[in-house]
Amino acid sequence: MGQTLTEKILEDHLIEGELETGEEIGIEIDQVLTQDTTGTMVWLQFEAMGLDEVQTELAAQYCDHQTYQFDFKNTDDHRFLRSAAGTFGAHFSRPGNGICHNVHRENFAAPGKTLLGSDSHTPTPGGMGELAIGAGGIDITVAMGGAPYYIEMPEIVEVRLEGELPEWATAKDVILEMLRRLSVKGGVGKILEYTGPGAESLTAPERMTITNMGTELGATTSIFGTDEQTKDYLERVDRGEEYVELQPDDDAEYDDQIVVDLSDLEPLIAEPSMPDKVVPVREVAGQSVEQVIVGSCTNGGYEDILPVAKMLEGRETSMETETIVAPGSKQASEMLARKGWVAEMMAAGVNFSEATCGACIGIGHVPASDSVSLRTFNRNFEGRSGIEDDNVYLCSPEVAAAAALKGEIVDPRDLADELGDLEAPGVELPEKYDGSKTDLIAPDEAVDDELIKGPNIGDVPIRGQLDADIAGEALLKMGDNITTDHIIPATQDILMYRSNVPKLSEFTLSRVDDTFADRALEADGGFLVAGENYGQGSSREHAALCPMYLGIEAVLAQSFARIHRANLFNFGIVPLTIDEDTYDAIDQGDDLEIVDDVYQAVTSGQEEFTVRVNGDEYTATLDASERERDILAAGGKLAWTRAQAEDSGAAPADD
Amino acid sequence: MGQTLTEKILEDHLIEGELETGEEIGIEIDQVLTQDTTGTMVWLQFEAMGLDEVQTELAAQYCDHQTYQFDFKNTDDHRFLRSAAGTFGAHFSRPGNGICHNVHRENFAAPGKTLLGSDSHTPTPGGMGELAIGAGGIDITVAMGGAPYYIEMPEIVEVRLEGELPEWATAKDVILEMLRRLSVKGGVGKILEYTGPGAESLTAPERMTITNMGTELGATTSIFGTDEQTKDYLERVDRGEEYVELQPDDDAEYDDQIVVDLSDLEPLIAEPSMPDKVVPVREVAGQSVEQVIVGSCTNGGYEDILPVAKMLEGRETSMETETIVAPGSKQASEMLARKGWVAEMMAAGVNFSEATCGACIGIGHVPASDSVSLRTFNRNFEGRSGIEDDNVYLCSPEVAAAAALKGEIVDPRDLADELGDLEAPGVELPEKYDGSKTDLIAPDEAVDDELIKGPNIGDVPIRGQLDADIAGEALLKMGDNITTDHIIPATQDILMYRSNVPKLSEFTLSRVDDTFADRALEADGGFLVAGENYGQGSSREHAALCPMYLGIEAVLAQSFARIHRANLFNFGIVPLTIDEDTYDAIDQGDDLEIVDDVYQAVTSGQEEFTVRVNGDEYTATLDASERERDILAAGGKLAWTRAQAEDSGAAPADD
Repeated sequence: MGQTLTEKILEDHLIEGELETGEEIGIEIDQVLTQDTTGTMVWLQFEAMGLDEVQTELAAQYCDHQTYQFDFKNTDDHRFLRSAAGTFGAHFSRPGNGICHNVHRENFAAPGKTLLGSDSHTPTPGGMGELAIGAGGIDITVAMGGAPYYIEMPEIVEVRLEGELPEWATAKDVILEMLRRLSVKGGVGKILEYTGPGAESLTAPERMTITNMGTELGATTSIFGTDEQTKDYLERVDRGEEYVELQPDDDAEYDDQIVVDLSDLEPLIAEPSMPDKVVPVREVAGQSVEQVIVGSCTNGGYEDILPVAKMLEGRETSMETETIVAPGSKQASEMLARKGWVAEMMAAGVNFSEATCGACIGIGHVPASDSVSLRTFNRNFEGRSGIEDDNVYLCSPEVAAAAALKGEIVDPRDLADELGDLEAPGVELPEKYDGSKTDLIAPDEAVDDELIKGPNIGDVPIRGQLDADIAGEALLKMGDNITTDHIIPATQDILMYRSNVPKLSEFTLSRVDDTFADRALEADGGFLVAGENYGQGSSREHAALCPMYLGIEAVLAQSFARIHRANLFNFGIVPLTIDEDTYDAIDQGDDLEIVDDVYQAVTSGQEEFTVRVNGDEYTATLDASERERDILAAGGKLAWTRAQAEDSGAAPADD
Repeated sequence: MGQTLTEKILEDHLIEGELETGEEIGIEIDQVLTQDTTGTMVWLQFEAMGLDEVQTELAAQYCDHQTYQFDFKNTDDHRFLRSAAGTFGAHFSRPGNGICHNVHRENFAAPGKTLLGSDSHTPTPGGMGELAIGAGGIDITVAMGGAPYYIEMPEIVEVRLEGELPEWATAKDVILEMLRRLSVKGGVGKILEYTGPGAESLTAPERMTITNMGTELGATTSIFGTDEQTKDYLERVDRGEEYVELQPDDDAEYDDQIVVDLSDLEPLIAEPSMPDKVVPVREVAGQSVEQVIVGSCTNGGYEDILPVAKMLEGRETSMETETIVAPGSKQASEMLARKGWVAEMMAAGVNFSEATCGACIGIGHVPASDSVSLRTFNRNFEGRSGIEDDNVYLCSPEVAAAAALKGEIVDPRDLADELGDLEAPGVELPEKYDGSKTDLIAPDEAVDDELIKGPNIGDVPIRGQLDADIAGEALLKMGDNITTDHIIPATQDILMYRSNVPKLSEFTLSRVDDTFADRALEADGGFLVAGENYGQGSSREHAALCPMYLGIEAVLAQSFARIHRANLFNFGIVPLTIDEDTYDAIDQGDDLEIVDDVYQAVTSGQEEFTVRVNGDEYTATLDASERERDILAAGGKLAWTRAQAEDSGAAPADD
């Protein structure tokens, strides 16, 4: 039986498991990327692991979310990230150099490699045949430590593209059509593999618009095979030698197939406030537009902005519409500037921004109240733009430029009819992507060889090997359905301490009991007790990391939410399930003790533990895989990865 | 006796008073400008005055401070300002089009005119022979209503410039030298008139760097005579026909004279954290620099950034230094882009920003903690950059570019020696300032003819004619030294309601008694009672506007701070001085009554008023000039200006 492209790359990187749908596999990671809002914790955890240098082929740290640096904490984070990249051997992309996905595809993405990134749009270079997956911060950390990345083998779905795009339809309309058909949940647990003559007709940057926004389908990742288009793009970014031909076998078997005929597509638009609320642009034509923004990792490339510049050249944007162009990379900006396009756009009324994620994550250019904003971005979730009840539409650069000219939503085909001299700009790649790389600092050029931490950047705690004896006070007894928002709130005033575990930990469970953090620190060890569904909600790792920092050794709960339970293993806290009687028997402040030799019991696969409460004994259950037991015994995922690295000969730093 | 240039322009605009130092004069205002953080209140007050349109020759509304639009309130403010400009007949400069002073000088500033602006750097076009003064919001409003601007006639000081600037010394070094000599208080109560052969040698943009930063001397304004340089600049901005020759008479008498020999100057720098802490660059050479920013209204012109571009061309900025260029106007950006300089700067490692005040007011690019930032701005007050204990140096663009290349402070002459091939860029004006004007919307192109107010933009109250009878409760009795910070706090969470008087008023005197605002609104009339020095501190007008909104009719205090007392007149609240016995006799909650016919007494010049407290009568004093009495009687400055406009035939709108 033939293999899919995904299976070929996975097989090439497989360290543990079998490539069977639903089975856990461990794969080797070649490249990692992090950005500035997730990167600080990644590097603090890496520091805590005690390794000297990154173990992956390549690591790249980008600064793209907080480029406006509107608090010194942002600027300190950037300085810290530069120092971390220098210290541990990663590439560092300075603030203003562009969005991680754009700079990564220009400089590092390569066919057949695996990429793990702490940003949900990491799948972007799937359009170049790289298997690229978004993950949590600690996953990046452990990958950089040389450990495999573990994932349940997804279904592989073929998306067969037939035909060619007609004039004014674009790659953005392909992914909008996918969203229209599949919805934002349609890709969950799946890898989408694009094939067929339609795929062949798309340039690599067009493919990357599709793979980037494949994240909105919920897909694990999206990928295209490599071919002349891939080779052509690699040559234009001066990395022709990295080309590898990769295609699925002719007799590859897919779990499902979707067929899209590109020649049927027309300009589409996602209405507020979900990327899958897709309709033809003509259905919403006439809607006045107060703001147009072109950019983001989906449509911020040179070849995305060039059509806009061509459409605006010699024309003026509507005086009722603010038009902002924020390129995805400084390379794109520099090339557009060098060829005169930046001046042309400015002359047409464009506010030309530095390269940044910016408005896409609600940082800057927040729409006016009760107004419509039309953006070439990938997400329009309610409130994401920075105002609660926003009206954000998503579309192609061409549709955005048409709206900027007209001041209202208009199908560019109709605007072309109206104006008479507006030509479809088509897709044009530059001869060479020849912007300078001054802002990308390679490990061998690094300016720092030690970490620079501002006052808001703390250390990350790392737990030692699991104790044999666990005993202490029931520091807090909670009811059912405690969320990770209860454990670590995510309001803005608390979020800014994400690089500062000691400070952030002060807020741990403060919504339940604001004396808890102080008491836990003082007790230096102890238990949390909860009812059903403990840790539901967001996946945030801090909900385990902060209790660990405060000294919590075990959580006794009637049941755990799936992801939080995994996080407890990752941070070395023993999650024990108790029944209702046991729960009822425990009062806050009671002295508890696990009677077993905990280390021995965990490593030997023991499932039932005895807990002594006020002299009475109860049974608690540990439900864990072998790998989870190993992680717990080591003191958490960081300690475990460190140990793995030591075994493999990578030298840990002194600490 | 001959006249100074200032006297000539003032005489030409004199409506009231004599041109004698210290005497109050009223002058006609030809042009006004406002920016986005002061403009909203200006226009709300203008709306409240009830006039149909602006009465000055020209009014211009710029959006430059909050261009990043971090909150929908910023974007709503910009939309409101566009609608106000359209409704009342002002030019509107869109966010991203540049800093008010830069765009104003490019488009509107003209020799011999008077300009009043609600921004402290309004004196900038003094370098073109315009008499330009910064003032408070309500001064702008009343000027737009057609009323004279009242000011005490300042001393006129001649600053005679001899010689010519040597290589690498710049106009910025002239004003830094002035600050070194005079200190930040040296210009208070003075107008500085630049003369001499050295003045003749400077281009108009260089002169405007000097007049702009003259604000840091505390001067009322600074001005140069007009000559071939002025004419040349006006021709380059395509307004040659606006040239008027204006020079002081040969036998003009000045109150004082300062002589600066330009040929003695060298690159200077202001150390943290005051613009007058000026030393030669060589004295602080070697200091490492983490951030360099070129831009602002002082050094953000095309001709300011061009030398930086020339110095960086073909070179790379230090990897340890973040270099940001934020042009003062989009015209400058567009021209630099069109000629390839933007691409060259980007290639050298510059993060090229949209045109904005931005970092100069602590919005964006806040320095990292414990780091040095070197900026071409005009102010380095402690904390202004957005971090409390900052280290901001001020210097010329050439010194900034040298630091960006070297990563440390260096005299560019020494860097030139070191590099061998670094030439002094000198001053080069473009043939034509030919950037497009798409983002400057003239009144006859206006897109709005009614005000658009978001939910955070309220109405401004306007008080009717002063009542004959004033009686009511003593709503609050306060002690001595109540500050305007007590009356209206200026913390960030309250500041953002500056466009929203009803909302802002909820915080009135909340630091003294948080029930006050509710009680006052309910009482609909009443008194404030205070001890000595009531209203000391900041000059903020809201400290009178908000009590007026809440219905306060009179303040009885043992004494008033000077500026707040003026503000009480401006907002129609009667400020009566009482003695200690009267103060002691009044308890909070007492019913008070002014026995006199208040309107009649105020307008007739009566100084002593009888106040009935609990049946007993006491004497209170009104100390006011005739103009202040007129303003009070009319119900405040807005109502008074409105009445003046009606008398002069300007039609008030129906309301």
